[in-house]
Amino acid sequence: MDSITTSSYAVHFNQRAYDALNEHLTATTYSKIFILVDENTKRDCLDDFKKHTLGNFDFGILEIVSGESQKTIPTCIQLWEALSDGDADRKSLLINLGGGVITDLGGFVASTFKRGIAFINVPTTLLAMVDASVGGKTGVDLGPLKNQVGVINQPEMVLIISEFLTTLDQRQLQSGFAEMLKHGLIRSAAYWDTLKTNTGFTNMDHLIYDSVTIKNDVVLQDPTEQHLRKILNFGHTLGHAVESYFLESKARKTLLHGEAIAIGMILEGYLSKELTGLPETELEDIKTIFLNRYPKTEFSETDIAGILSLLKFDKKNSHGNINFVLLKKIGDPVIDVKIPHELFGRAFAYYNRS
Amino acid sequence: MDSITTSSYAVHFNQRAYDALNEHLTATTYSKIFILVDENTKRDCLDDFKKHTLGNFDFGILEIVSGESQKTIPTCIQLWEALSDGDADRKSLLINLGGGVITDLGGFVASTFKRGIAFINVPTTLLAMVDASVGGKTGVDLGPLKNQVGVINQPEMVLIISEFLTTLDQRQLQSGFAEMLKHGLIRSAAYWDTLKTNTGFTNMDHLIYDSVTIKNDVVLQDPTEQHLRKILNFGHTLGHAVESYFLESKARKTLLHGEAIAIGMILEGYLSKELTGLPETELEDIKTIFLNRYPKTEFSETDIAGILSLLKFDKKNSHGNINFVLLKKIGDPVIDVKIPHELFGRAFAYYNRS
Repeated sequence: MDSITTSSYAVHFNQRAYDALNEHLTATTYSKIFILVDENTKRDCLDDFKKHTLGNFDFGILEIVSGESQKTIPTCIQLWEALSDGDADRKSLLINLGGGVITDLGGFVASTFKRGIAFINVPTTLLAMVDASVGGKTGVDLGPLKNQVGVINQPEMVLIISEFLTTLDQRQLQSGFAEMLKHGLIRSAAYWDTLKTNTGFTNMDHLIYDSVTIKNDVVLQDPTEQHLRKILNFGHTLGHAVESYFLESKARKTLLHGEAIAIGMILEGYLSKELTGLPETELEDIKTIFLNRYPKTEFSETDIAGILSLLKFDKKNSHGNINFVLLKKIGDPVIDVKIPHELFGRAFAYYNRS
Repeated sequence: MDSITTSSYAVHFNQRAYDALNEHLTATTYSKIFILVDENTKRDCLDDFKKHTLGNFDFGILEIVSGESQKTIPTCIQLWEALSDGDADRKSLLINLGGGVITDLGGFVASTFKRGIAFINVPTTLLAMVDASVGGKTGVDLGPLKNQVGVINQPEMVLIISEFLTTLDQRQLQSGFAEMLKHGLIRSAAYWDTLKTNTGFTNMDHLIYDSVTIKNDVVLQDPTEQHLRKILNFGHTLGHAVESYFLESKARKTLLHGEAIAIGMILEGYLSKELTGLPETELEDIKTIFLNRYPKTEFSETDIAGILSLLKFDKKNSHGNINFVLLKKIGDPVIDVKIPHELFGRAFAYYNRS
């Protein structure tokens, strides 16, 4: 499978990924190489990954507890200190082996340790493969506010090893699939049609490749998210708020990122029908596909108020306005849409009565 | 006074600085403007600064406690949260009004808040004017390790208002003067000769301009510190270790940055005489000038061991080697010099017996 070249680095796949890694490690004299894992990727992926690295590397292993609740500054402090204690210097390398928490947080830790050391991302979840591989976003949460602290910085390379998908359960696979479905909604009706009938996760190598290509095309045209790149936020404005609200709530079960943005895409699909002309049949298609794949949630009035109160912290906002990405039709987005406040309640009502 | 153009922004002086600021604030639509101060700059500089801004700005004031001991991640968390609470968004601006702690820490907070917002530095100490104005280094300390966490990122502009020097006491002025003397030692014997007889801080506008010009010339030639820029670290490898050691020690009085690197320059001057041919007369000149300006310290064997144990964390190191900048003669530095371990004891002995 060909590699995909982004602004400043390449995304490599499967055997080509290991070859590229080994070429890079041979060509670059790193003083020390660290691998960041959580307990899951330590158990399921680390040995396999190390087995594929040629040469006699004395990897330093950094381990954190898995889960979005660990994507915090205190975890960063733990890792900055571990790097210091492990004698990491400016010529060291950090390999982030894990899901989006590991690649987002590890990328931020590397980008800020001694004002920046090199890092390589090896996403092991479907979500991280299709979403976090391209774009250079790193960051951590600040209390309930997602990715409030971070930088844009590029890894040396990204390695997508689809073999690691076998370590995931169905729920995690579905979570990643939501971002792929989003790529169809914002960029390609044909891709959406291909994905929506794919219930068995078949042909994943090619579908992942297509998703990375779609995201890369968007990011290359607008690296700093001035205009086009905003379309990647479809479903995320409300989806992030839903995700944050559930993460903080003691009473509610935490949602996976894909589960939250699936809800966000139904809600923002409804707003699209109301405001930007998304045909009702397409809205029904979107709702049906997402409700078939993802668990239904009930939102009380209290929940809705709590979720809306988190909206103002979304990073896509400026000057006090909340800007949404909506759809004119599937594959055809509109950016910077303002939403009359009363529509939010109707969107949640539409979701609740589904 | 002409402005100095760096890689991506300008350093403006005095009235021209205020003019440039007002032009910038008129031309750019910021959603909100925050000013970061400590209790000193809030009392001594803030009103004067605000008086010079035209237009009706509703500045958000962020205040931290002064001092190097505050240059930490917990202070960053306090500021990231204050920005969130103050509804800062990606189109907001942070103006850092203060010494090096404020500009280093405020620059880091701005560079990482929502993956980066704009910031302007207004250094109010001599040290920050001549050292922190150029180069884009931001960062905070991690325990005893100085600037261990940070990024390289450029402000929108830097405003040097020499009027603010009147708010400083003699000790703070001397601290900044140490960096200016360093600029002479690494780049211009003539500048060193001009400065060394200047005991009354006269003609400071021009001398500051010369220092910023020297640093800017170096940084422009090597923005990422691969080679030439390393010369700016003269006196800092041992000086940082001395500074960190005193900062952590309960028994010893904390040194100002310039006081610590003045000691570092005597120590590294001694190493230069031993290893790179610095003439003994020039070493004596360096020692005399620094001892006349800065308080003498006594280093016990315990102190020296503690200081040397901090050396390995210096950011300039790689592959386990400690690289020093030494001098062949005043104005003529050499980079990447390795030091035989036994010389450190002799360098401290030279300082102690002075």
